[in-house]
Amino acid sequence: MPTYTAPTKDMQFVLHELLNVSTADTPGYSELEADFTAAVLEEAGKLASEVLSPLNTVGDSEGCVLENGVVRTPTGFRDAFEQMKEGGWTALDLPEEFGGQNMPYVLGTAVGEMFSGANQAFTMYQGLTHGAASAILVHGSDEQKATYLPNMASCQWTGTMNLTEPHCGTDLGLMRTRAEPQGDGSYKVTGQKIFISAGEHDMAENIIHLVLAKIPGGPEGIKGVSLFIVPKFMVNEDGSLGERNGVSCGKIEEKMGIHGNSTCVMNYDGATGYLLGEEHKGMRAMFTMMNEARIGVGMQGLAQAEVAYQNAVDYAKDRLQGRAVTGTENPDGPADPLIVHPDIRRSLMDQKSFIEGARAFLLWGAKMIDQSHRGGDDDAEGMVSLLTPVIKGFLTDEGFDMTILAQQVYGGHGYIEEWGMSQFARDARIAMIYEGANGVQALDLVGRKLPQNGGKPVMAFFDMVKGFIKENEGDEALKKDFLDPLKEASKHLQAAGMFFMQNGMKNPNEALAGSYDFMHLFGHVCLGLMWAQMAKAAQAALEGGASDTAFYETKLATGRYYMQRRLPATAMHLARIESGADPVMALPAEQF
Amino acid sequence: MPTYTAPTKDMQFVLHELLNVSTADTPGYSELEADFTAAVLEEAGKLASEVLSPLNTVGDSEGCVLENGVVRTPTGFRDAFEQMKEGGWTALDLPEEFGGQNMPYVLGTAVGEMFSGANQAFTMYQGLTHGAASAILVHGSDEQKATYLPNMASCQWTGTMNLTEPHCGTDLGLMRTRAEPQGDGSYKVTGQKIFISAGEHDMAENIIHLVLAKIPGGPEGIKGVSLFIVPKFMVNEDGSLGERNGVSCGKIEEKMGIHGNSTCVMNYDGATGYLLGEEHKGMRAMFTMMNEARIGVGMQGLAQAEVAYQNAVDYAKDRLQGRAVTGTENPDGPADPLIVHPDIRRSLMDQKSFIEGARAFLLWGAKMIDQSHRGGDDDAEGMVSLLTPVIKGFLTDEGFDMTILAQQVYGGHGYIEEWGMSQFARDARIAMIYEGANGVQALDLVGRKLPQNGGKPVMAFFDMVKGFIKENEGDEALKKDFLDPLKEASKHLQAAGMFFMQNGMKNPNEALAGSYDFMHLFGHVCLGLMWAQMAKAAQAALEGGASDTAFYETKLATGRYYMQRRLPATAMHLARIESGADPVMALPAEQF
Repeated sequence: MPTYTAPTKDMQFVLHELLNVSTADTPGYSELEADFTAAVLEEAGKLASEVLSPLNTVGDSEGCVLENGVVRTPTGFRDAFEQMKEGGWTALDLPEEFGGQNMPYVLGTAVGEMFSGANQAFTMYQGLTHGAASAILVHGSDEQKATYLPNMASCQWTGTMNLTEPHCGTDLGLMRTRAEPQGDGSYKVTGQKIFISAGEHDMAENIIHLVLAKIPGGPEGIKGVSLFIVPKFMVNEDGSLGERNGVSCGKIEEKMGIHGNSTCVMNYDGATGYLLGEEHKGMRAMFTMMNEARIGVGMQGLAQAEVAYQNAVDYAKDRLQGRAVTGTENPDGPADPLIVHPDIRRSLMDQKSFIEGARAFLLWGAKMIDQSHRGGDDDAEGMVSLLTPVIKGFLTDEGFDMTILAQQVYGGHGYIEEWGMSQFARDARIAMIYEGANGVQALDLVGRKLPQNGGKPVMAFFDMVKGFIKENEGDEALKKDFLDPLKEASKHLQAAGMFFMQNGMKNPNEALAGSYDFMHLFGHVCLGLMWAQMAKAAQAALEGGASDTAFYETKLATGRYYMQRRLPATAMHLARIESGADPVMALPAEQF
Repeated sequence: MPTYTAPTKDMQFVLHELLNVSTADTPGYSELEADFTAAVLEEAGKLASEVLSPLNTVGDSEGCVLENGVVRTPTGFRDAFEQMKEGGWTALDLPEEFGGQNMPYVLGTAVGEMFSGANQAFTMYQGLTHGAASAILVHGSDEQKATYLPNMASCQWTGTMNLTEPHCGTDLGLMRTRAEPQGDGSYKVTGQKIFISAGEHDMAENIIHLVLAKIPGGPEGIKGVSLFIVPKFMVNEDGSLGERNGVSCGKIEEKMGIHGNSTCVMNYDGATGYLLGEEHKGMRAMFTMMNEARIGVGMQGLAQAEVAYQNAVDYAKDRLQGRAVTGTENPDGPADPLIVHPDIRRSLMDQKSFIEGARAFLLWGAKMIDQSHRGGDDDAEGMVSLLTPVIKGFLTDEGFDMTILAQQVYGGHGYIEEWGMSQFARDARIAMIYEGANGVQALDLVGRKLPQNGGKPVMAFFDMVKGFIKENEGDEALKKDFLDPLKEASKHLQAAGMFFMQNGMKNPNEALAGSYDFMHLFGHVCLGLMWAQMAKAAQAALEGGASDTAFYETKLATGRYYMQRRLPATAMHLARIESGADPVMALPAEQF
């Protein structure tokens, strides 16, 4: 059975030696001292590895079952959910007045990586609730907040997000679900929503559905979409639960993975709903949470890569097969462990160098969310808004690829379900799709985020990279191994941006045909930047006489691997981008 | 439900306009006139799309069930197997004297792509039988051939290959299964084999297991391995079936995909076996079939990419979502079809340009198998031996990636099982693992095939590329769009080979750390070569006044896409290779 070990040490390194959270001037960050975050991560790690991880394969093999309108979650999920609630893990970063812990988002993200890595399907029940609660927190009336938030913060009630319909996903303007005003401030919501994660299950007393719908007579298309609160059970004025609302689960989808989460077709038959935020401003309400939600999905990509890597390493050390070509390394055994073989190393180093770079990138993004939300820092908001599609798209694409590499280390044992490696790949696959398919992330990046604010965030990004290089190029080792490759990769990114500027005006397809490659090119530059910064931190620790020299030397070697072996991808992406729209758009549709 | 359309037209183009099979001087090729191959492919295509394809999702959802030692295949499989037998599709390229059709392997490969594309799990029952029959054909005594081949050629009896044991897959020298001589020419075979495809099922009267085992007292390790014929039911002298042999299925594995094929744990408890070939020469016997078997797996990678692509194209044309950024293309509909969006095009062109290049590469490889086996052409044997790991490794890695791209076109609908896209990805995944995991293919390529025969085959490959470029560089259009990029990519491949030569002698890890990238670099150069040759053929057809100009213009545009958008990967692989062993091998094992 696969296992999960919380990467506490690496998270501590990122939080304190790279991001220096406890000395940052963001409100709430002064509490994030190393001892405190270590204690939180330690406890979260215990829950992850001891409770959630053993249930991961159970959830996969049992799945969720719909019987007579009731969804049964896999064996053990209810108990584990109780433990998560009792431990106070359901609302780390929600305000204390509603029962949250008011911790910074950056810490919630680190904890979230642990829970997702241990059991993605399970953690989604809490994650969706957190997303819905955040929407109510930002857009709800005081009454709505008082009615829903305390029970959602504790996960007594869970939440869902209802966007997709059978005929529309990305293009929500085509939505057919309608909400008829009833004159008493409430609405009757009617329509069908699909792919609703945690739409129905047996782990909560009530489920609070957030539903996008159109109010008849409103504007056409996406501008006529409003957001509604539709509880499964009506909530009485005293807070007790009333009668069942007109919403039900019609079907559970059979999926490639995340079987432990109930992905429901939800039928709304004149269900009572309450407007959340303003009429026809439903998309805006969704968008305010989008950075967080997408960063959360990027986190899932990293988390599955991490757990798959951990198990691949264990197997590579344990499985005896063949002999090292440079001479036997395990003379007493019948063969050497897999890890002696260079191609197994290549695979593990690809994984390790991605994971640690991605974790730094993710937590940097989360820190900027805090700077924006807690500190009102507009520059941080602009930067994280620019980088969000990169975090989501690049981390989930690469995260999935890494689970495939990890699975491959197991040979045939990776293909059978017994070892759990197949599940990591199947679960990781969804993150490339939901919360905006990665092609949509690339479109968002190139079509909206690059030109945003006159290009200010992207210029700020380049200035930051240049600034870091300039500031540190006196350090010869850092320059050669890290800054020079970063400079080269960053030039490729700039050249790609320049190509879009020069050609995209005349023909937007010239930019959009390269959008996906641009997202990956950008992702590599970000990870290159993270590695250069981590290398600097590791050098500083070694020069400062840190006792755990192996940790910092490993960090440097892993970073050098990324710069030498992964960053060369930027030239390829640039070449693809600079070939422009012609090769991509050449064929008439009927010739495909 | 997904569909499959046999790519007959494209296969005909490759067979007749690229490979010119009917005018080649290989024995049997003169029969391969265009009308004849068209008729064969047409009929095979009907069976594939009308019979095998509709059973693909059935096989996936039902899987195989073991009850009381008997394995039940999915509903409809038995009938379909009868149709395959009745149509004479089970032994296209086996000799007529044993009931085969004696057709060239190249045609069998084209037909095999169709069957695999329509239903990989089903086709494996026949494929494994073919492999086992080929081994008996080459290594069996006259009596063994007479006893087994006619029934295997007709698939009245099916076959299996038993190599892997729980503790050893790649490193078969660790094998524990033993075969005790009984003094009467037979052996008692005892041991456990795992991952045995089609090990037990209900579609054949008998199952002929080929089993690797050690004869006690023989040489240690891989040199003491022999190959045995172990029938499920003993065969009486008159050819009738006798008593059940001591072999049974202990378990069916739960797998990520190919659920329609029964992957069995096979227990041999003193089962009666007969030596096939010579004592202790079992691995050699396996190796003689290895090129074909591995090319057959490469074919599966291509086949899954093809069927996934076909369905992605259908969906992209059908699904209305968003508007073309350059102006509405479907004004009467609520939205434009997905295929108007540049990033969807990018994905479909990646798929299409891979698939058509891969098909040419595959059939060229199959043609060389014929040149070697039928024509005794040692140069062809050397070349196909060199390219086999590239065909297997590159086509299955890329084929899997393409199924992921195709699945992504469906958004959330790609993740649920209903549309069948998940199955294509899950089924394609195994091809990267079995018949030698792709890391082992890369090792074979760099460690064995490059130095083989003093490097003669790889030099011949470079000469061929250079020769083709030189011969055609007077053609300006061909030169700019195809020959120049091919020359550049080929230089990268040569530089990589040079790096291995200069550094691998001192330290073999310098070569092996780059072996995987070398396999991909080589694959891109091969597909670049195929595209350059196909472009030449397409130009010739257009200049010759071919009526179907759209087909040839599409061929040229698709080829240009490959050269511009995919070939730039070669520089990245070279950069990774030239970074050498240090970054890969830097960490002590305990630091992973």
